[in-house]
Amino acid sequence: MLIVMRYGATQPEVEKVISFVERVGFTAHPIYGELQTVIGAVGGKIIDPRDIELIEGVKEVIRITSNYKLVSRVFQQEDTVIDVNGVKFGGEHLGMIAGPCSVESYEQMDKTAQLLKKSGVRILRGGAFKPRTSPYAFQGLGEEGLEIARAVADKYKMALTSEIMETSQIPLFEKYVDIFQVGARNMQNFNLLKDLSQIRKPVMIKRGLAATFEEWLMSAEYIMAGGNREVMLCERGIRTFERVTRNTLDLSAIPVVKKLSHLPILIDPSHGTGLRDKVIPMSRAAVAAGCDGLIIEVHYDPDNALCDGAQSLYPSEYDKLYHSIKKIAPVIDKRIL
Amino acid sequence: MLIVMRYGATQPEVEKVISFVERVGFTAHPIYGELQTVIGAVGGKIIDPRDIELIEGVKEVIRITSNYKLVSRVFQQEDTVIDVNGVKFGGEHLGMIAGPCSVESYEQMDKTAQLLKKSGVRILRGGAFKPRTSPYAFQGLGEEGLEIARAVADKYKMALTSEIMETSQIPLFEKYVDIFQVGARNMQNFNLLKDLSQIRKPVMIKRGLAATFEEWLMSAEYIMAGGNREVMLCERGIRTFERVTRNTLDLSAIPVVKKLSHLPILIDPSHGTGLRDKVIPMSRAAVAAGCDGLIIEVHYDPDNALCDGAQSLYPSEYDKLYHSIKKIAPVIDKRIL
Amino acid sequence: MLIVMRYGATQPEVEKVISFVERVGFTAHPIYGELQTVIGAVGGKIIDPRDIELIEGVKEVIRITSNYKLVSRVFQQEDTVIDVNGVKFGGEHLGMIAGPCSVESYEQMDKTAQLLKKSGVRILRGGAFKPRTSPYAFQGLGEEGLEIARAVADKYKMALTSEIMETSQIPLFEKYVDIFQVGARNMQNFNLLKDLSQIRKPVMIKRGLAATFEEWLMSAEYIMAGGNREVMLCERGIRTFERVTRNTLDLSAIPVVKKLSHLPILIDPSHGTGLRDKVIPMSRAAVAAGCDGLIIEVHYDPDNALCDGAQSLYPSEYDKLYHSIKKIAPVIDKRIL
Amino acid sequence: MLIVMRYGATQPEVEKVISFVERVGFTAHPIYGELQTVIGAVGGKIIDPRDIELIEGVKEVIRITSNYKLVSRVFQQEDTVIDVNGVKFGGEHLGMIAGPCSVESYEQMDKTAQLLKKSGVRILRGGAFKPRTSPYAFQGLGEEGLEIARAVADKYKMALTSEIMETSQIPLFEKYVDIFQVGARNMQNFNLLKDLSQIRKPVMIKRGLAATFEEWLMSAEYIMAGGNREVMLCERGIRTFERVTRNTLDLSAIPVVKKLSHLPILIDPSHGTGLRDKVIPMSRAAVAAGCDGLIIEVHYDPDNALCDGAQSLYPSEYDKLYHSIKKIAPVIDKRIL
Repeated sequence: MLIVMRYGATQPEVEKVISFVERVGFTAHPIYGELQTVIGAVGGKIIDPRDIELIEGVKEVIRITSNYKLVSRVFQQEDTVIDVNGVKFGGEHLGMIAGPCSVESYEQMDKTAQLLKKSGVRILRGGAFKPRTSPYAFQGLGEEGLEIARAVADKYKMALTSEIMETSQIPLFEKYVDIFQVGARNMQNFNLLKDLSQIRKPVMIKRGLAATFEEWLMSAEYIMAGGNREVMLCERGIRTFERVTRNTLDLSAIPVVKKLSHLPILIDPSHGTGLRDKVIPMSRAAVAAGCDGLIIEVHYDPDNALCDGAQSLYPSEYDKLYHSIKKIAPVIDKRIL
Repeated sequence: MLIVMRYGATQPEVEKVISFVERVGFTAHPIYGELQTVIGAVGGKIIDPRDIELIEGVKEVIRITSNYKLVSRVFQQEDTVIDVNGVKFGGEHLGMIAGPCSVESYEQMDKTAQLLKKSGVRILRGGAFKPRTSPYAFQGLGEEGLEIARAVADKYKMALTSEIMETSQIPLFEKYVDIFQVGARNMQNFNLLKDLSQIRKPVMIKRGLAATFEEWLMSAEYIMAGGNREVMLCERGIRTFERVTRNTLDLSAIPVVKKLSHLPILIDPSHGTGLRDKVIPMSRAAVAAGCDGLIIEVHYDPDNALCDGAQSLYPSEYDKLYHSIKKIAPVIDKRIL
Repeated sequence: MLIVMRYGATQPEVEKVISFVERVGFTAHPIYGELQTVIGAVGGKIIDPRDIELIEGVKEVIRITSNYKLVSRVFQQEDTVIDVNGVKFGGEHLGMIAGPCSVESYEQMDKTAQLLKKSGVRILRGGAFKPRTSPYAFQGLGEEGLEIARAVADKYKMALTSEIMETSQIPLFEKYVDIFQVGARNMQNFNLLKDLSQIRKPVMIKRGLAATFEEWLMSAEYIMAGGNREVMLCERGIRTFERVTRNTLDLSAIPVVKKLSHLPILIDPSHGTGLRDKVIPMSRAAVAAGCDGLIIEVHYDPDNALCDGAQSLYPSEYDKLYHSIKKIAPVIDKRIL
Repeated sequence: MLIVMRYGATQPEVEKVISFVERVGFTAHPIYGELQTVIGAVGGKIIDPRDIELIEGVKEVIRITSNYKLVSRVFQQEDTVIDVNGVKFGGEHLGMIAGPCSVESYEQMDKTAQLLKKSGVRILRGGAFKPRTSPYAFQGLGEEGLEIARAVADKYKMALTSEIMETSQIPLFEKYVDIFQVGARNMQNFNLLKDLSQIRKPVMIKRGLAATFEEWLMSAEYIMAGGNREVMLCERGIRTFERVTRNTLDLSAIPVVKKLSHLPILIDPSHGTGLRDKVIPMSRAAVAAGCDGLIIEVHYDPDNALCDGAQSLYPSEYDKLYHSIKKIAPVIDKRIL
């Protein structure tokens, strides 16, 4: 912790700060600059920096230890690679996940999966419990949705991912899914994160709408801290002043996260843009920026989708996208199945 | 729903849209302007506007029915007034809630409540389960915290409010609290909102860090839709580019919400600013803007608080604030106990 | 400057940084913590911290000297008080400025000023050159507008303020206005700021839509650095994700700026909210939070205003607002004429 | 213009609105829905929608005509292609611009340009007048900088672009540059835009830090409205809550702008990320998303650059980037020299 004194702070003020931090267990190292004094405080317990900021003469307090440890590249230098049904995420690998926003019926899942299978997809997505802003909107099929999605995934030898909404659903999801998906709105549902740290299946955690990189990594830390080391991060757009796009897809998350952490980072261009004709260019961009995976909404008949049809690709578009990605990936030394 | 065609859209394009919306149950009313055609679509089911935006020739689709009903001032013209332990929120009434960020010990709660009682406080706050960004930070005393807070509240004839984290905690909280508090991070924890709609105690729902007014009101709608009509809204700061203040306290929420909804709106200046010396001016400002209540962090000894001491007032500061508020409230025809 | 090394940085990496900063004139003070090393660097020239961030082993670099000096409360402890036509801004004084968004005609200015005079207004506002997003919108009357506004101000013994758009207009404005207004879009028009530092009339500088407090103060520093010490700051709303209000009026600017700087801070609730019915509560709130002045749009006939009528008060509303403010101001020890 | 009445608005309220809009020249087309009435208003002059929003019973007013015309794809279907020194921007072409942030000396420009020439660069960038947040920072070499940059550009048969700060500099810049660059802070310096509409050289206009797509296109409209049709747009990052990256580079600007407008869109990954190691992945991503050009900061010796060295590439990095871009461009049918 670094305590920056105000320009003009008096020596007694400096000493008061030193005695405060020493009282709570730190060793103080004052640096007397020309204009300002800075006090390095080493070795104490975690305290709220604002407690010190309110001491007379203090300008600001700067925390220097990132709170995340297990997710950090310092803790583990080599990339974490997660393998689900032979599809790898991380390192030199780029994995693909595709499927509809919501499970609507067996027929819908079956038709969609059949087409995706032809494009090489081995991991299916499909929401059964949908977080909806309005209480009057379609809330998903619930367990029936999971059953359908599982049956279809099995039929096509695919793995399955679906979004979990709260801790009580964990036993249910364990029966059906291969990857637990934590939605953006639940990124700081800490009870859920703690309980997911106890399971032994991969968890994909989406970045919250207004979450900083640090907060996002801290949420991943919750999962790793409990012993679950298979965590994937997924950027899906942040909220900014711009509203033409549903969200602002922050692709700089890719190089930022890869520098700070060893965990794989995926991109969800479907939620990140909210419009089908933006999904394709942004998917290509994500690959060129070095992402470790994509999760893309595809529906065999988007015009009649119950949910987010407008951001779902037609299967033929997915296929075309897949082939362009296969050409871009090698340019940055990534392998895709 | 209004469908705005692009400038230069052809008549066949217009007709394709009309037939689409009629197929899904709407009646279409085209308006042919000089430059553009707009199609009013009336009476159909809820559909995703983006499905229409992707039809050739369409520029944008505008939803005209707000999705919230029960929380709307259209549904109920007169202000909802909520009475907790004789303290009223809403209408001409301004209610006060105060107490520490976290319950730390019986002694801490007792000393704080004793002092607050003298300043007329009748509703005590205190967190038992704390949502913390870091898994390594103090997470609250849990049920023991609720027990302590309840015992102290009873001793001083106060009501109690505390933050609930997930649905499984509802039975526990029903035993201890008079107002259920839903934190900013849980504003869109829809499972929690649904279950809180079944209880019969007031719920205070904080605005999410990046939640629009509409999303916030929709979350309140979740609670009212299940039959719980005692909902209070609480603004606690939104996330913007500015980081000197912990959040940007959006006081315009007060006139905006009061126009759109009949529900009481409270302000939390402690989280909204994050620094004690900003709490007092912003509290006064909130009252002058017409808020229906304040929830303020006060600790008998902020310098030694386990959590958020830096934004907690000293009891003497609270007392001084209270007296200045008592002078401002009548200027805008508000009554405070 | 503080250089935070990564957790795990090697001693040679630390030494490389030390030699780098010493080479560019700093004295290095390494602090070896349990987990991380921090190097305090004192006394060198201003350098781009990112140059150091790119050295192997460096986590981040923290600048500790604020770049603003003259505007800082460290430089001048007592509040700057600016007197314009007997109206004071700063210290214990609260000053009022009112008038229409744009000068439209002599009649419009005369009728508006006559009514404002009765409510005690001594400083008139009115735009002659209007910054408009669209090239096809009304751009103001130009010099004729300044002439009209000056004539009316003189008639009612008022001072005048109007917005300047670029450096070439300075001689023109010097003839007509008593306070130079720099709009939000020009907050970082550095050529304009430099030239305004050479005049000897007060300058009111509005906060840019996305300007941090530091950037805003730095722009004020540009004006003071050239020798003009009469600078007023004016908060007029920042841009956030919320679009129900035109901008988000950030009233926390008041306590924040008053702590960092000795300069007076005014609030513009008209642009800050964009809607008349929000102007009144937010004006009261600004006063209760301790602002040093208000600048409010008033038009004798807002329904027929050429510009921003929707956010202009009726003169009777202004009068009512003024009387409520007179009651709130003394509560926080502010004096208003 | 569409006027949405509140749910429950009375017939007299509806009629009052109709008579208002007819009075100002519109033809009114009411649509009576089940829950709400909407009034289409066609053919009148431009008015401030908020004037109508304040009429009793009105919920909101929606403008349906975009204010930009000349920049719109409706006005011109085919892509504008701008040719500078044989480098094309727009359509199937991808153009490159590179050079240092600031002109520092003849030697620096010469060494940098010599290396860039080898990587095929034909358009050099270099700032002579620098917009700096602090009055105490290096402000550029001024005219001398332009002279140096021009001499070096001529030596290597390159074109030149540099940032202009205000209208008075136009004659000076006309002597030296081939592309006028308008910086993000000047995107709404309307006087400058108007004067640039009179010149006959390409203008590159950067997106403001908090500018919406519509505002940005409106600023381009200012330039086209005066007769200058060679306008390039340049995304360089927007300001969001995230501060790890200097700005958030919004690559979705590429598909969004290409749909709305025929003008070429360039990306500036150097300012957009602020860190060298993010520039390369984001440049590749921009190309994969379909941008029409890149402007990249390169310095022969970034470690000793006077300005923004940390975001400048080494020439060898530029060369490597260029070769990877050459492989990605054909995947999306783009040609690069």
